[in-house]
Amino acid sequence: MFALAFTMQAQPPRGPFVRSPQVHGNKTVTFEYLAPNAEKVILSGQFLSGGPVEMTKGDQGIWRVTVGPIQPDIYPYNFIVDGTSVMDPGNVDYFPNERFKGSILLVPGDEPRMYELRNVPHGAVTYEYYPSLKGSTGSVVVYTPPGYDDSPDKSYPVFYLISGTTDTEETFYKVGRTNFILDNLIAEGLAEPMIVVMPYGNVAARIAEQKGDVKPEDPPRDSEASNLRMKQIENDLIKNIIPYIESNYRTIKDRESRAIAGFSRGGGQTLRIAYGNMDTFAWVCSYAASASPEDMDTDFVSVSSNPEQTNKMLKLNWVSVGNSDFLYRPVMDYMKYMDEHNIKFQGLITSGGHTWMNVKKFVTESAQLLFK
Amino acid sequence: MFALAFTMQAQPPRGPFVRSPQVHGNKTVTFEYLAPNAEKVILSGQFLSGGPVEMTKGDQGIWRVTVGPIQPDIYPYNFIVDGTSVMDPGNVDYFPNERFKGSILLVPGDEPRMYELRNVPHGAVTYEYYPSLKGSTGSVVVYTPPGYDDSPDKSYPVFYLISGTTDTEETFYKVGRTNFILDNLIAEGLAEPMIVVMPYGNVAARIAEQKGDVKPEDPPRDSEASNLRMKQIENDLIKNIIPYIESNYRTIKDRESRAIAGFSRGGGQTLRIAYGNMDTFAWVCSYAASASPEDMDTDFVSVSSNPEQTNKMLKLNWVSVGNSDFLYRPVMDYMKYMDEHNIKFQGLITSGGHTWMNVKKFVTESAQLLFK
Repeated sequence: MFALAFTMQAQPPRGPFVRSPQVHGNKTVTFEYLAPNAEKVILSGQFLSGGPVEMTKGDQGIWRVTVGPIQPDIYPYNFIVDGTSVMDPGNVDYFPNERFKGSILLVPGDEPRMYELRNVPHGAVTYEYYPSLKGSTGSVVVYTPPGYDDSPDKSYPVFYLISGTTDTEETFYKVGRTNFILDNLIAEGLAEPMIVVMPYGNVAARIAEQKGDVKPEDPPRDSEASNLRMKQIENDLIKNIIPYIESNYRTIKDRESRAIAGFSRGGGQTLRIAYGNMDTFAWVCSYAASASPEDMDTDFVSVSSNPEQTNKMLKLNWVSVGNSDFLYRPVMDYMKYMDEHNIKFQGLITSGGHTWMNVKKFVTESAQLLFK
Repeated sequence: MFALAFTMQAQPPRGPFVRSPQVHGNKTVTFEYLAPNAEKVILSGQFLSGGPVEMTKGDQGIWRVTVGPIQPDIYPYNFIVDGTSVMDPGNVDYFPNERFKGSILLVPGDEPRMYELRNVPHGAVTYEYYPSLKGSTGSVVVYTPPGYDDSPDKSYPVFYLISGTTDTEETFYKVGRTNFILDNLIAEGLAEPMIVVMPYGNVAARIAEQKGDVKPEDPPRDSEASNLRMKQIENDLIKNIIPYIESNYRTIKDRESRAIAGFSRGGGQTLRIAYGNMDTFAWVCSYAASASPEDMDTDFVSVSSNPEQTNKMLKLNWVSVGNSDFLYRPVMDYMKYMDEHNIKFQGLITSGGHTWMNVKKFVTESAQLLFK
């Protein structure tokens, strides 16, 4: 078997074999990083309530630290090597993002949590390429529920889910684990079988990349540019993505069968798109996002001035945020505004900040209310 | 728009906006990396024939370098920051891998190359979750050709494509761009419409991860462990993946409609699986991989001792390698062996080494021969 063993060897020539992360039965986690010449290696992760911790250099130049026990969840983390933030080379799970590169740690629950892989029927996740704005080709990630291919006569409602600033169309899948959340909710009968469509919120960047233009600064520095960007995602969703999905998937094509949600910027985009297209969406969720009283009084006056109509049209108006989120205050103001204007909404305030640990909670809770 | 603009802002608070990579019209490329406190930043990439180049620190702590013109292709690269190798934080295109983390640079051709996004009908890429060995759940990436969903009565041949050591089931998609290669070949009538199935070659690692066991060293240090691993991917493909694909996709279920190929370790796995399952596959391609004369004389004696039969059974026996690949010599020996034993094969020797630039060439050339 020599030759076959040989063809199995990777380049570059092997060093010591590093295992990272290693999650132990007691929910402590050991991290390893190979850096024979580094002077200081630090572990930085959203699971470290006490802040970053130093790692210790061991044999063969492998730096190690064991932390925890850690509360079961999925967390972004990095190593900081002599001041430079790096992903964990030993971990294949990554955080898709335009501006930073992070690794992902899963600490499983004693019973698998709702976002964990369970022994239930699994849906599929498909990367579709569709005609987008200005002759560009868009990429959108689509979850189809278990049994979709086995029931050719069944049509499904669609949940449009937009990620935040610097996130990509992959983030709700790779970090939010939306596919496993839906698999598990559906298996328990807690959510309706639905298609989930995850677009890319930064259309301008994709157009620039494909045309070879200089990538526009994001987020834009002035509100006019912000409005233009907002209009782009609205046009891409309404004119390109929804028609593409509804002609390529078995969907129910009425407003009661379309939901829209988003996180952070995606939540702002969600409110703009939903309030501006009440004929298209009946279910609206904003995760750590808000519209300002000024916007409600002006851009969304049709929504704010006629609460009876709004309450009749919206099957769900969901608002959620963590109480230490940097957007907690504007979200509170938004809820206060709707309260004062008799606009019905459902609010979920959790602990924690502007994190994907919270996003998973928001999706898990709000998805159970959709299309019922 | 203040509040909506505000909800659009990302955390952490914005620094200077870094654009990297920027590919210019003359095919020079500018790279930027933000590191106000770094002492030395180096660009390392497979497009740098002269080796790594130093970057220069500019205003706001942004390091820059412009290199090229660069030959159109897709290349892995990293920054080396005071000795630490990092991905390009400004680039969303990454190299999925178990052991290193790299970014991906596309330098487009004057006319889009066969692996580039063109204005042609696009297939879709689906992540499927299937029942794998020892109660684990496998993930496999599946390309379906343009029009697959529009022709419910049509069935397709299937090309199984296994990536190499430390690569994942995503590598042939994200780095090999197999979907765009097939889109373009099919659009030009150069390849038959086919389904491409991309499994994960390191089954043992996935089982260990899901069971919470210690991840086994890979590649294994002894040939016995190598044989066990080889048997695992063979069993997973033959007993789990092929039945799953053939019951969930519209496939033609005969050996003349199944092809198998792989790169590096995946090529070794391909030869082992193909020669051991001639009733399942009629089309075989090995990319930078080989079987040793010893293996051919012993494990594959049914193949080597009866060349007439072997030549009759194999519609294609493709062997390819770069002339500076560290596996060039054993691949030469393998071709010499087949030559001496009157086993028909088709060989493609290119320039270059054990790279994904070459893998894209091998896939582009061999895919045109399949199922014809």
